[in-house]
Amino acid sequence: MSHGKPLAELGEFGLIDRIAANVPKGVGVLTGIGDDAAVTGLSPGMQLLSSTDMLLEDVHFRRSWHDPYRLGRKSLAVSISDIAAMGGIPRWALLSLAVPADLSVEYLDDFTAGLLSMAFDHGVTLIGGDTCASRSGLAISVTIMGEQHPDRIIRRSGARPDDDIWVTGTLGDAALALECLEGRLPAWVGDLSDSLSLRLLDPFPRAMSGRLLAESGLVSAMIDVSDGLIADFGHIAAASGFGGTIRLDALPVSETFRRIAAELTVFPKHLLLSGGEDYELLFTAPAAHREKISRLVKKSGVPATAIGIVSNLPGTTVLESDGTPYLPEKQGFNHFK
Amino acid sequence: MSHGKPLAELGEFGLIDRIAANVPKGVGVLTGIGDDAAVTGLSPGMQLLSSTDMLLEDVHFRRSWHDPYRLGRKSLAVSISDIAAMGGIPRWALLSLAVPADLSVEYLDDFTAGLLSMAFDHGVTLIGGDTCASRSGLAISVTIMGEQHPDRIIRRSGARPDDDIWVTGTLGDAALALECLEGRLPAWVGDLSDSLSLRLLDPFPRAMSGRLLAESGLVSAMIDVSDGLIADFGHIAAASGFGGTIRLDALPVSETFRRIAAELTVFPKHLLLSGGEDYELLFTAPAAHREKISRLVKKSGVPATAIGIVSNLPGTTVLESDGTPYLPEKQGFNHFK
Repeated sequence: MSHGKPLAELGEFGLIDRIAANVPKGVGVLTGIGDDAAVTGLSPGMQLLSSTDMLLEDVHFRRSWHDPYRLGRKSLAVSISDIAAMGGIPRWALLSLAVPADLSVEYLDDFTAGLLSMAFDHGVTLIGGDTCASRSGLAISVTIMGEQHPDRIIRRSGARPDDDIWVTGTLGDAALALECLEGRLPAWVGDLSDSLSLRLLDPFPRAMSGRLLAESGLVSAMIDVSDGLIADFGHIAAASGFGGTIRLDALPVSETFRRIAAELTVFPKHLLLSGGEDYELLFTAPAAHREKISRLVKKSGVPATAIGIVSNLPGTTVLESDGTPYLPEKQGFNHFK
Repeated sequence: MSHGKPLAELGEFGLIDRIAANVPKGVGVLTGIGDDAAVTGLSPGMQLLSSTDMLLEDVHFRRSWHDPYRLGRKSLAVSISDIAAMGGIPRWALLSLAVPADLSVEYLDDFTAGLLSMAFDHGVTLIGGDTCASRSGLAISVTIMGEQHPDRIIRRSGARPDDDIWVTGTLGDAALALECLEGRLPAWVGDLSDSLSLRLLDPFPRAMSGRLLAESGLVSAMIDVSDGLIADFGHIAAASGFGGTIRLDALPVSETFRRIAAELTVFPKHLLLSGGEDYELLFTAPAAHREKISRLVKKSGVPATAIGIVSNLPGTTVLESDGTPYLPEKQGFNHFK
């Protein structure tokens, strides 16, 4: 199809056809894009997992920071991360786009290509959606559907006292990248932060780790770290009816984060604890499974680190390396503030 | 909970808890609002139907026309209508809300109450969603999931030459109400148009009719009339690879529509053909089933009318009462124009 065509000329159905033309046939898809509703079939014995996320221009992303390809990837990644957090297998996605008049067809092509590349990476098929004009910024809504056997699904509510608290990958990279992009750090930091930027702009959801952990039967509770470690552990604690202690010096940080942090006047602990958008998996498991979990996550290609212990007492305590309590400055993000 | 609380104080999680508190336990729901993803189970032998719609302030609705309760109802109704069009049983919904700073907690309570009343009317359970701040207007995204046996699902593609073309209820009411609200009709029309306004502001999706028709095995193709009769029949025609002839004098209109139209200088045929937002069901069926269908739709409480015939030739022809072709002025809505 020709590029440079104005979107108004392409129209709603033209845009849908253009997207549909690039979608391959997927697992369990009987009817994809193009009818009133998509028709899909769960695998035998599986239950349906579903979740939805909305991303708004200048609230969740900036067009000046995010190229459309990576924005497309991230729009699906944050939803896949929710399926990962349940230990599920991501399968199908629905995409709604509210498109401002100034957006070109090329922009939308790149956005779609990015979204479909993330879909391909995780075996997800785009099966439907909605498109309309926006009178303000670009608005993106993604619904993800996945599946898992009922006795393998991991909820937030299963943590028990003395369980280890684990987290995959590293924390704080996306939050540090945001500090750089917003100009709150010295200019030299920018030179070191390419890998950090990717953590913010193109996060890779831990779908394989989540599925392996769930199917191993070793894990008691799980969530993805989107609001920040403290806030998200708080969700596990509240749902499980317990609390926990997290050791600051156990928190996994990337080599780049460590190098930048070493040059700052104060180590940015709050970015590890409350930065958000890590899209790592935070999970709990009985201490007896510690060795098995270490081996399992090694197999999934993403390390995991034990960072604390679930306790009988309510509330989350963060301990400094000397054993004294750390007082968090900020409990995750409140989007309404 | 106390009213008058500013939304910023209530916060994202406060808003979610407030909505969740009013949601009853639903069919097939293992985990509803409050985890990373909802967990639901399809009934034995059923397949999943899913669809999503986005509603934007000043594009799809105006806050000055729509009270929040009816806006909540309509937000879910338009999605239920998509499940109805497949002949499915609506089951579960996900709701994303982007909330402008000036919106009160009372507004959101009323919106939610409306959405949950529409959910109750159709046996739908709200199982999750997302909330965030909006820097412009209110943005609403609803995903609906439903189910049906694979051999009962009705697609757009099943129409065959000589099938009757049917439509439920009446056409043009919502479009005439929009003309009134936008001040394009004489003032006296407003006095007659209360029932019409409800068709626009509080449409009732034909879920029971769609399900009965699908389960009867009498119907070959189906769609809901959201873009306008001509445009939506065009979708059936394109998917089926045929065309059709529609008789203008067969189109069902309400008593109120007829009374208002009689006072206008020109009968507003284009509102019946291209008005949109009727949320009636447009379906095709072999002529041999005509009597059975009439009896069946009577049972569902919503009449249906045979309005034309599927033909071997491509394209849609609309005939005036004297048999001459009518030339449509407008082919549904193109949201990008």
